[in-house]
Amino acid sequence: MLEYVTDAADPRLADYVSLRDVELRKSLEAERGLFLAEGEKVIRRAVGAGYPVRSVLTTQRWLAALADVLGDSLVYVVSDAVMSGIAGFPVHRGALASMERLPLPPVERVAAAASRLVVLEDLVDHANIGAIFRCAAALGVGGVVLSPRCADPLYRRAVKVSMGAVFSIPYARMDDWYNGLAGLRAQGYELLALTPDQAAVPLDEVVMGERVALLLGSEGDGLSSRWLHESRPVCIPMSPQAMAAGVDSLNVVAAAAIACHGLMRRAG
Amino acid sequence: MLEYVTDAADPRLADYVSLRDVELRKSLEAERGLFLAEGEKVIRRAVGAGYPVRSVLTTQRWLAALADVLGDSLVYVVSDAVMSGIAGFPVHRGALASMERLPLPPVERVAAAASRLVVLEDLVDHANIGAIFRCAAALGVGGVVLSPRCADPLYRRAVKVSMGAVFSIPYARMDDWYNGLAGLRAQGYELLALTPDQAAVPLDEVVMGERVALLLGSEGDGLSSRWLHESRPVCIPMSPQAMAAGVDSLNVVAAAAIACHGLMRRAG
Repeated sequence: MLEYVTDAADPRLADYVSLRDVELRKSLEAERGLFLAEGEKVIRRAVGAGYPVRSVLTTQRWLAALADVLGDSLVYVVSDAVMSGIAGFPVHRGALASMERLPLPPVERVAAAASRLVVLEDLVDHANIGAIFRCAAALGVGGVVLSPRCADPLYRRAVKVSMGAVFSIPYARMDDWYNGLAGLRAQGYELLALTPDQAAVPLDEVVMGERVALLLGSEGDGLSSRWLHESRPVCIPMSPQAMAAGVDSLNVVAAAAIACHGLMRRAG
Repeated sequence: MLEYVTDAADPRLADYVSLRDVELRKSLEAERGLFLAEGEKVIRRAVGAGYPVRSVLTTQRWLAALADVLGDSLVYVVSDAVMSGIAGFPVHRGALASMERLPLPPVERVAAAASRLVVLEDLVDHANIGAIFRCAAALGVGGVVLSPRCADPLYRRAVKVSMGAVFSIPYARMDDWYNGLAGLRAQGYELLALTPDQAAVPLDEVVMGERVALLLGSEGDGLSSRWLHESRPVCIPMSPQAMAAGVDSLNVVAAAAIACHGLMRRAG
């Protein structure tokens, strides 16, 4: 169903307000139970993954590309000028969709269905979250578990950077940070904590059991001492010359990519 | 030498204008032969790597942290308000330095001194360039070679994302894209072209000689057919389920991280 809207302030576009204000969007999306998918490809994947469409916002020019996926969804069609006015940035391939969130499964269910997990503690950067989901999905990790305070994989930028991988890999969020790892251990997971500390065992030398959970810490501080203490520290060996020159760590996405690749190479 | 400046438009601050205008900065920096280092750590590494300081722009508050590295450099001290007015974004740890560029070495010299090279064809995203330099340095790659049109590793954002790794790993830029690879081959490099094409040889199965150059293509289109044709395609194996779900590639930083790690694991 098409509705033509000519005013960026039209109340029908309330799902799309303040797109550059991360804090406001976080509370707005939580309250209304929605998230935004940007661009035809990502919208298509969100729909394919079963998320109900609340509405789509696009311009006449991009309507045709989306026609087959929209069904009888509510579609707001606006001019390029109104689109720019609403978004405040160039919208990827001219379309945004407001999608309904679905209840997340419990951690136990995601863990039960997988043999390789990535567990993210308190990451704050949505682009990093998206990139790690993309790596984990592409490299055959079976699920992602988030600490209670880890940033939201369905935030627009995370969804976009993941190229929709947030829809294809199951994930869950822990209720309890302090005791969160005990449950995974009880389900038979060996917990490997990735650390830049070169005194840890190199990941490539770890003999891996049937179930492995790879723990990744936040961008600034890495893993908490609580989680490090609960798990086995592993490292990615770095060049001694680079360490001496002060290049003493990898960013979390690069480390996650190498580690997920390591898990896959040695899958049972 | 300290100079207190009270006006964001003061001509003495000409090196620091239009910091959010990438196109303007590119031509301005090329014309004046400068680049910007942001934050105490990165400035320190740039100075340590031998780049001469043209000037430093900071606030009273951050002066002390830089005191030992500044020597008799020209330092412009401004208020927080002027700093915000100049930058238009929160400057990392309150300091920017305008540094003189040094002449790049020829490709042959960088290649001669290394046994593992990363070769970047036409990457456009400065954050990706910076992240790849950080990976390459941390994982013991001996040098980076850029195609003629590849984005500038000394652009502020690349320098920042690299955490200064652009200063610790030697790099050079080809003059000639079409015949650029022939020179590397003549120096004994085996050319491995990283591609998402799963029909290529998995990188982990390649028997590597003494000298290996890993070719990475641009964010959108990957490597040109010319370069693919000149080299041996290799891939990072991905999960068949993910491929079926449309997660059919890794981003270039994740791929570079995995591949550089692969090179290091099997260094001679």
